[in-house]
Formats: sequence, structure tokens, C-alpha cells
Amino acid sequence: MTTQLKNYAADQWVATTGEGTPLYSAITGEMVARSGSEGLDFKAMLDHARNVGGPALRAMTFHARARMVKALGQAIMDRKEELYALNWATGATRQDGWIDIEGGAGTLFTMSSKARRELPDDVVLADGDMEPIGRQGTFVGQHVYTSLQGAAIHINAFNFPVWGMLEKLGPTLIAGMPAIIKPASPGAWLAEAAFRIMIEADVLPPGALQLIVGHPGDLLDHLTCQDVVSFTGSATTAMKLQSHPVIAREAVRFVAERDSLNASVLGPDATADSPEFDLFVKEVVREMTVKAGQKCTAIRRALVPAAQLDSVEAALRERLSKVVVGNPQAEGVTMGALATPGQAAEVRQRAREMASEARLAFGDIDRVDVRGEVDSAAFVSPLLFRADDPWSARLIHDVEAFGPVSTIMPYRDLDDAIALANRGKGSLALSFFSYDPEVTRALVLGAGAFHGRIVIVDRDSARESTGHGSPLPMLIHGGPGRAGGGEEMGGVRGVKHYMQRSALQGSPRQLSAVIGRWLPGAPQPEGPVHPFRMRLGELPIGYTLKTPSRTVTLEDIEHFAHFTGDTFYAHMDEEAAARSPIFGGRVAHGYLILSFAAGLFVDPAEGPVLANYGLEGLRFIKPVKPGDSMRVELTVKSKTQRSEDQGEVRWSVSAFNQDDELVATYELLTMNAA
Amino acid sequence: MTTQLKNYAADQWVATTGEGTPLYSAITGEMVARSGSEGLDFKAMLDHARNVGGPALRAMTFHARARMVKALGQAIMDRKEELYALNWATGATRQDGWIDIEGGAGTLFTMSSKARRELPDDVVLADGDMEPIGRQGTFVGQHVYTSLQGAAIHINAFNFPVWGMLEKLGPTLIAGMPAIIKPASPGAWLAEAAFRIMIEADVLPPGALQLIVGHPGDLLDHLTCQDVVSFTGSATTAMKLQSHPVIAREAVRFVAERDSLNASVLGPDATADSPEFDLFVKEVVREMTVKAGQKCTAIRRALVPAAQLDSVEAALRERLSKVVVGNPQAEGVTMGALATPGQAAEVRQRAREMASEARLAFGDIDRVDVRGEVDSAAFVSPLLFRADDPWSARLIHDVEAFGPVSTIMPYRDLDDAIALANRGKGSLALSFFSYDPEVTRALVLGAGAFHGRIVIVDRDSARESTGHGSPLPMLIHGGPGRAGGGEEMGGVRGVKHYMQRSALQGSPRQLSAVIGRWLPGAPQPEGPVHPFRMRLGELPIGYTLKTPSRTVTLEDIEHFAHFTGDTFYAHMDEEAAARSPIFGGRVAHGYLILSFAAGLFVDPAEGPVLANYGLEGLRFIKPVKPGDSMRVELTVKSKTQRSEDQGEVRWSVSAFNQDDELVATYELLTMNAA
Repeated sequence: MTTQLKNYAADQWVATTGEGTPLYSAITGEMVARSGSEGLDFKAMLDHARNVGGPALRAMTFHARARMVKALGQAIMDRKEELYALNWATGATRQDGWIDIEGGAGTLFTMSSKARRELPDDVVLADGDMEPIGRQGTFVGQHVYTSLQGAAIHINAFNFPVWGMLEKLGPTLIAGMPAIIKPASPGAWLAEAAFRIMIEADVLPPGALQLIVGHPGDLLDHLTCQDVVSFTGSATTAMKLQSHPVIAREAVRFVAERDSLNASVLGPDATADSPEFDLFVKEVVREMTVKAGQKCTAIRRALVPAAQLDSVEAALRERLSKVVVGNPQAEGVTMGALATPGQAAEVRQRAREMASEARLAFGDIDRVDVRGEVDSAAFVSPLLFRADDPWSARLIHDVEAFGPVSTIMPYRDLDDAIALANRGKGSLALSFFSYDPEVTRALVLGAGAFHGRIVIVDRDSARESTGHGSPLPMLIHGGPGRAGGGEEMGGVRGVKHYMQRSALQGSPRQLSAVIGRWLPGAPQPEGPVHPFRMRLGELPIGYTLKTPSRTVTLEDIEHFAHFTGDTFYAHMDEEAAARSPIFGGRVAHGYLILSFAAGLFVDPAEGPVLANYGLEGLRFIKPVKPGDSMRVELTVKSKTQRSEDQGEVRWSVSAFNQDDELVATYELLTMNAA
Repeated sequence: MTTQLKNYAADQWVATTGEGTPLYSAITGEMVARSGSEGLDFKAMLDHARNVGGPALRAMTFHARARMVKALGQAIMDRKEELYALNWATGATRQDGWIDIEGGAGTLFTMSSKARRELPDDVVLADGDMEPIGRQGTFVGQHVYTSLQGAAIHINAFNFPVWGMLEKLGPTLIAGMPAIIKPASPGAWLAEAAFRIMIEADVLPPGALQLIVGHPGDLLDHLTCQDVVSFTGSATTAMKLQSHPVIAREAVRFVAERDSLNASVLGPDATADSPEFDLFVKEVVREMTVKAGQKCTAIRRALVPAAQLDSVEAALRERLSKVVVGNPQAEGVTMGALATPGQAAEVRQRAREMASEARLAFGDIDRVDVRGEVDSAAFVSPLLFRADDPWSARLIHDVEAFGPVSTIMPYRDLDDAIALANRGKGSLALSFFSYDPEVTRALVLGAGAFHGRIVIVDRDSARESTGHGSPLPMLIHGGPGRAGGGEEMGGVRGVKHYMQRSALQGSPRQLSAVIGRWLPGAPQPEGPVHPFRMRLGELPIGYTLKTPSRTVTLEDIEHFAHFTGDTFYAHMDEEAAARSPIFGGRVAHGYLILSFAAGLFVDPAEGPVLANYGLEGLRFIKPVKPGDSMRVELTVKSKTQRSEDQGEVRWSVSAFNQDDELVATYELLTMNAA
């Protein structure tokens, strides 16, 4: 069943002109596929991404791109069994494959739905509020994000061929950038199959995706400031790539996710009979064995209060003794093989080094019992080390053995635990098992700057906890220092990594046109038609209704107070209200102003406005006193189509008094017929 | 008047143990100062920042740090004339000095006030909203920023010795990071004097600031992932620094602001008699001559519709002929000297190279008329080049002549203008002179990804425009590609560059304690005292009032409709309301629900609650129908002290119906007595 993997260049499937490198099953040692990229024109691939893929993606709105990303996820789900069939040969169990395949598709779904909820249906993204600059308001600032105009180069790791590809791809495509993907060789057959499913889904514009199943040749030589390199893998390769002269010269964005000596800390408050103790033990074993420990986020160092170290060791040994290593297709197997015999040899070598400074508490470096039919040297036993003097040890904090390997060590007090956790010099994930919120806050303040993700597990959250080692699409993934200093996902945060932030300055009229959203000071055209009588598509941005005014009487205020029950002294007690430095006398209720404002601008008959579903940013600027009058300006601020027949309208509402002073301002949210 | 400049290391003023490098006046050529850093222990300076300065700054809240930054700005303003006296020798005019000195102090003021307005009075900053993860809400996500635990290394340029120092310093200190500052040699006497004023202001904790007036020795060798290097200067030096092996190995954050071939574009809609034409001409001349063109943001390339090129050239020559070069202390001088004779020689050399592909339209490369007494070779004439075929020219897009040098060139249409602007390969600032918002949007979409700031100037904004070349503290400063790929300032955005973003996961109770803000699902303790009777300091986060319920009758709805004038059909017309897919029958007004909610939770008597000043994030979740009842939960979400006797309380309000279904949720904002 040997397959010749193909590259996908300029919308064509292209085989290598060379012989290709053989790729082997981690379980049986049989050849699974050949892969290679000889003969590709890498510069032409970049040009294709820039000249064909980029313009096509940038012509789509965020919402259109997000719907496309969802369709890609759906295509993966529809054909997932094809991928599971290719998963065994990577050494992974079905459960490992679930993380990779369905986890990857789920990442696309989440990114898609967050993008549609949080981004406008446009191609430019406003960042933050308008910044006032000039006093008269004729010159203002507004930050925006626009799509980078180059290509995203994704250089992926071997451990999660599908998820690793999709977690980078979702944000990239939503940002409007084409990608050129280079999977790692081990498991490349699985990445290529998932890639092929996405192409066959036929939802991508030409040039959006390309694939290199081999060496990327001179690709990096041709990068510019509009490209992004996103690398996941070893520190050695990351540093080699990062020091490519083009990276500094062109200031190419370089994102790395590399080695990480992640720690898990059993809190100082946890005793052997506390729920957090058991949760900690389970989690350490889970992280050692899932994907045979080949996870960038796995727990490499388990930090335990000195008094608990023996109990933790015993509990871990007990639990590890139940792990069944073997052919993932054999009954009862809970841990598979490493990706290649070479990986396994490297892990054994590192474990031997670690044994020079830590005692092996579980497992055998050189041999492992294996269940089921296998013919491969890619299996390694779970290996638990114990370092009683973690401050004199070095390798356990510095060397990532990328397999089922972890070290337990004692700490004296919280500060010592924080210092040990931080001694990993930057990690992707730290977990903390404690029920004490004060201690948790101290841990986050002390360790936050060293860890990209911190998971706090306790008896309240354990049942729903996704665990130490699971990056989630709505949360950032990456970490400082040794972990590479990169950041991915985190919902819309990850999209922005593929866009450029720029500060715009100009008149509200101009900036309003750029971002497709009315800004204070921009034109407010009026018309003969009440805006509540116009459908979503008919409402121009900036369209404004100016209402007549009405007087707010003392009777209104008293009546409102008794009717609603809100008899706050500022409305009802002249003497007390006069003492208030804010009011200096009785004033109308804020909610009375809001209610009267609605009375002024609402057009009551059935029509395109389906519902007022919310309100944002309400500020009461100036009190309304008995006898004051008020009028309202209602302006279309922005619109977002949500379905074929509905969309949201965001209205800017300003209420003024008889002296044209602003008394209240807010945004009103309505659902309108399209 | 030669001064021996001193270093400031570990809170001591330290002279170099060497002879020091002589620094000369750009005007008179006389020696002004000597500077050097021989004998400093750079590793010890880093350790001092990390072990003394960092902990002290991190113990202060954002607000305390921001008040300190304001005091530093005030100290500069109080002693500004001392700095103006040192400004002449840099070659700068009083106006140039104003940008540097008062502009620098103003940057601190703006950063300080934005920080106090937008950041919590705490040491940890929540980023974005809580992210739901588990369905039951027991395990959620929350992003936070915490301060980096190392030192910020600021390597500054020579052109703005004060502003260049302060624009980096404000965000750094507010982030809670100590800084080690290395000013450029030319003008170092001015930077050292401004630094000294800040130290003498006596508002900084020990270790917060250190100064190196000379070579930084082996400083970089000792950096870790907790440090930040922020460099402003030439591309050559930037690339040298960035390729230091420690940067990639430790993933040290490296921020560069370097060469930039900024462009200004006269819009295709601008004719010779349009206001934008004149504004463009004035701006190009201003940018050529302010600070003798030694601005990273200066206009190097002026792009003009082909039909306007001759008129623009004539207008520029006319205006440039009025520039008076000379000793800035002499009457009528509008442009001073370059920083050093060496800089002037380099600018002349680059101009000679540019002359090989562009015609010199104004000025003389080799000589300049100088007014007033001078004895220096640091003066250069404004030099305007004209390139009629900009696509065949290369140097004008690639070589930054860091002086009063600019090139005008024609473009065919907007796409051509965008392509030429982007040919600078990334810039700090692009300006666009147009009155057409459609064209402006097209320009931003086409050019945004290449430029860190885009200034749109037109007749509406010109009077308040701060111009092409002025970075502002509330806007980001930096740009992609050739400009270095860095980003500074931008208000709170700049603060975050000195902090680490981490994703937290855990129970709402735990995460609430970490960020000092109540999160949905966290405990809601009740007590015998109504929360409106408690002062700011007495209110615990999470403290909750649960009200009794009241029924909402059809009479209430009709009464409210007639009283307020809001007779929307959903409230008043049973048949029409029944047709609505959202309501399916008459429902209560949203504002009636809000008003009744206040009636339920307000405690009317005079007390610590001074005013309800606003409301955020209101969403109506489920309609309230006639006969439904409603009750409210009012929970203290967060508190921010604003003065000695007042502070803001943010309350989470949830209204439920008789079936305990959420009908509305919002945040209420009150001002409370402290």
C-alpha cells in the first residue's frame, strides 16, 4: 500500500521528479509512502500565493472566509474514517487520532464561529475605539488591521499531522492569507490526505493552499515583509530558520513553537487525601502516555510539596503500571509507538542522560513490553524519573525527551515551586492543582511571564477540565523563551497575527468610509423616510433621525419613581439631592431618559425592525433636571448581515437638552429584516 | 563647558574609567561633552534591574506606575529650559526642540492618563472576556497580561534624544518593567540631562532606570526571555543586533524601528486649485526641513498624479526657496544643522548616488547658504529630486538619505500610486492628500499592510492635523519590513509589549480571584447589608443582592407605552406581535424591564452610591410577557478607586423570570464614596 505523496503547487498535484524518501509505519516498520519535492519551483509557488491566492481571499469578507473554513472542517469530519485508517501507521491510538483529526476539525469550527461572531462582515478590522486627537474633532485616529499581502509558510511538526496543520490554517485563511504548508516527514501521508480532502471540498479559491511534501528548497530566500513563517518543531531547527538572513533583513514575521519543559505543580495546600492530589496524579500519567508523550505541551516536570513526594511517586507508579503499550489496533492498548525508531532512540538516549542526575522511578529505558503484533523499534516504556534535589540538576529542566518521559521533584514552598517552574526558561503550559484562590493568584503573578497557558485544576472544575496538555482554539497557544516566543490561535487574536495593524489619522468622514462604520463627527445625512421603515440593505451608514423634543417634568419623575419603585433620593428628595456634588438638586432617572428617548425615536408600526436586543456603552453625561427638555439623534453606526433574511444594526444614540448639551449617549442594537 | 557625561548604574552615577569619546556641537564644532562606559559591569546592571527594579515596579499597580510616569513628565516640563539650553548644540531649532522635549513630556502625560483610564488599579490585566469552555460553566478561560520579569534595553537614536527616550520609557514603566537606556552618542548630553532630571524627581523606585552613555559591552550576552530589546536606528545596526545568537536562542523580544522610505501621495482627485494640493506642498516642505529632515517618519518620496508633477515641482521649489538654513539661535533661521559633520557627509554622498537616477530640482549637494555664526560642516541644503520614471529607479525607493532630502515622482493611477508607495518595502508613515473617501478606502486596503501609520489629510482635517511625521502616543509607531517590523506606543497597546499574555483556564472562582473581578459562576456571597449601604472599600468582589420578584402586567406595559411614547407594536398590538417570530405575542419593553430592575435593587436613601453613570453590555435574552414575574441579582463585579474619596463600581445585573430563566443581563456602573 505504498503511496507516492504529491505536492500541490499552483493548483496542480505534482509528484517529485526524484525518487522520494521512503516513510515507514511506526508499528509494522513497513513502507507506507514516499515523499519528495524535487523539481518544484518554490519561487513560483510564492508568486502564485501572492498573485492568485491572496487577491482572491482578500476579496472575500471575514464572514465568507469563516464559512469556507467551516466547510473545510466539515469536509474533514465527513471523511474522517479515511484519516483514522491512515492514523495507525503513525503509531497513534484511536484516542490520539481523535485529538488530531476531530480536534483539528473542531478547531476550524471554533475559529469559524468566533470569526463570524466577533469580526465584521468586511475585509478591514477596526482595532479599538476612535482616538480623539484635535479638540474640534475634525482630526481623529483609528487603528485598523488589513490582510498581509504575502504567503503564510507553515512548517509543521510530526506529532499531530492534521491538527497541527489546521490550527495554523484556520486563522490564516480567515485573515485572508494564502498558505504554503510543509508537513513533517513522519506521518506526512496523513497530512497529505487531510490536505487532499480540503482541496476536494472545492470551497477554496485558486492559490489559497499549496503543499510541499519534502524539502522546501530555496523558499525562504524569496520571503518579504508580507510573508509569515510559522514553525513548530525542535529548537535547533527553529534557530536555524530564524537566523536565515532574509528574516532579519526583510523583518519577516517569524513565529516559533519549539521545545518546552512544561511543569505541573501540586499545590502546597493539597494533601494526599485531597481531590486535587488524585487529579494531579491522573493528569501526569495521562500527559505521559497520550500520543506516547509526543506533545509539545506534555508535562515534563511534576513539582510536588516535599512532604508529598513519596506518596505521589507511589501513586504514579501504581497508575503507570496499568498502562498497556503496543499495537494501537490490539485490544486494551492505551499507549502506541513513537513516530519513528529514530525518535525512540533519541528519547532513550536523553533518558539515559537524565538518569545521570535523577533516579528512574518507573519503567525501563532499554526495553518495553508490547502487546499485539508489531515489528518496529519505535516503542518506548513510560519513564518516570525522580530528582530529589532539583536545584542541583540541570538536564531535567533543559532537555526535552519527546516521549513518555517525566520527572517528579520536590519543592519547599510556593516561591520555590514558582522558581522551579520558571527554570524551564519559558513554556507552553503550566498546570496547578490547588483549591486555594489566594495561592493561585500568587502563582499566576509569579509564573505568568514564563508560561503561555496556565491551567488551574481543582475539585470544582475537574469534570469539565480539558487538561494540562490541550491547546484550545479560543485560547492562545505558544509560550515565551524556550517555547519559541510565538503565539497562535486564541480566537481572533490568532487571525491578527496574519494581518498588519496600522494607525489611521484623518477626518471622521474619511475614517468612517475606510472602516465602514459611522464615527462621531462623520456626516449624518437625514431623509424623508423614518429609519425604522428601511430594510437592512437600504439603511445607509450615518443615516440619521433627529427627533422633536419633549419636556421632562417633575411630575414625570415622581410618576416614574412610583411606577417603577426606583425612589432613589436623587430623584425624590430635593434636600438630599441638593447636597450631592453630582446633581445639586433633583434629577430625572437615567432609565427615564432612556425610556423617553425610545418614545421619541421609535416608529411603532410593524416593519423591518424586528427587536431591540441590547445596548452598549451607555453614559449619562449631564443630569436632566425637572423642566429640561430632551431630543434625540439616532444614527446608523454599523450593520452586520447575520442570515439571508436578518442582520444587526448598531445605532448611535445621543440625547441632548434644550441647550444642545449632550445628556446621554449609547449604542442601540436592533435585529432588522434584510 | 565640556561635561563628563555619567552612567547611572545600580542607582549610582558612575563615570567611565576611560578617557571618554568627545562629542561636538553641530553648530560650532566645539567639544560639548565626553562620554563613555568603560568599567561598567553590565551583567550587574541587568541583575540590579531584575532583582531590585523589577520587583519594586511590579509591587506598584498600573495606576501607581502611571502617576509616577506623569510626575516624570512634569519634572521634564518644570526644568525644560535647562534642556532647551542643551538643545542648540544638537543642531536643532527651538521648534525642533519643542518636538523633542515638550513632545517627550507630553507623551508621558498621555500614556499616564490613558493607563489610568483604561487599565485596572491592579498588577494584572485581563485581556478580553471570559471564554466559556465547559458546558456547565465550571471550567472557563481568561487571558491575562502580567509584567515581564527582566529588563527593557532601550537603544535609542540620535535625532530625538529626549522624546526617543521617553516614548519607550512610558509604556515600559507602566508595564512594571525596569529599563536600561543607551542613548546615541550625538546629543547624548541632552539625553543624559533629561535622564538626570527624572532621577532627581525622586519618584522612581531603586533599580527602575539605568543609563549607559557609551558602548553597552557584553550586555546582550546575558539576556533571557524576560528581557526586551527595543532599538531605534539604522537597518545595519538593527540586523547586527537581531542576529546576536542570544536573541534567537532565548527568544528575546526584539523590537526595531529602522530605515523607512516614507511616501506621501497627492490623491488622484486633487487638482492644482484644490485645498489638498496646497496642503500637500506645505507638508512635503515641512517634513524636509523639520529637524533638518532627520526624522524616521520624514517624507522621502512624494507621489504625484503625472498631470500635476510640474505644478507640484514649481510649488515646492517656490516654498523651499524660503527656507533659511543656519545657526538656530540666529534670527529667522527655519532649519538647523544635521547632528554631526559625518551625518552631513553621508547625506551628501547618498544624494550624489540618487542624482544618478533622479534630477536635482532644488538645492545644491555640495554647498549651502548659512545664516548666523557657525563653524561646522554639519549643514546641508534642502535637496529635492525629481524622478520621472520611478519604476526604473531603484535608489530613491531603497536608500534613506537621513537629512533634508526628498524625491518627487509621477504616478499613473491609484493602483500605480499604491504599488509605488509599497515599493518602499514597509514604512513608518504614509500620507494621502485626498477628499474622496472611496479612494481613501481603496488606498488603505491596498497599502495598509505596508505602512504602520497612514495619515489622510484634507480640507476638513487640515487645521487640526498633526501631520505626516508626528508619531502620537495614543497611536502605534513602527512599521513592517524595512521599518523594522516593530510597534511602540499606541496607548495601552504599547504597554502590552512589555508584558506576557497568558491563557488561564480554571473554575470561575479561581480565575475571578486572579484577576480581581467577579466572573459568572464565581461565588456570590450575600449578607445582611444592602450593597448600596456599603462604601467602596467595604464592598467585597462578588457580593450579591437577590431581590424579591414583581409581576409585570399588561397594564404595566400599556401604561409604560403611553407614558414614554414608545408604542412599538411588539408591546401594543397583539396580532402583529403574534406574527413576530421573536416575540410570538405582546411583550414588555426592554426599558420597562431595566426600570423595574432598578426599582427592585435600588436602596433609595442617601448613601455611598453617588450616581449611576452608565451601563454596558445589555442583552435582552428572553422576552417578558404580561403576567411574567421578574427578580434581579446584583453582584459586585469590579471596583476602581478614582480619587481619595470616590471610585467606580461595576455591577453585574441579571434579571430572571418566574422559571429562573435569564431575561436580561448587563453591567451597571456607579460612582461610589470610598
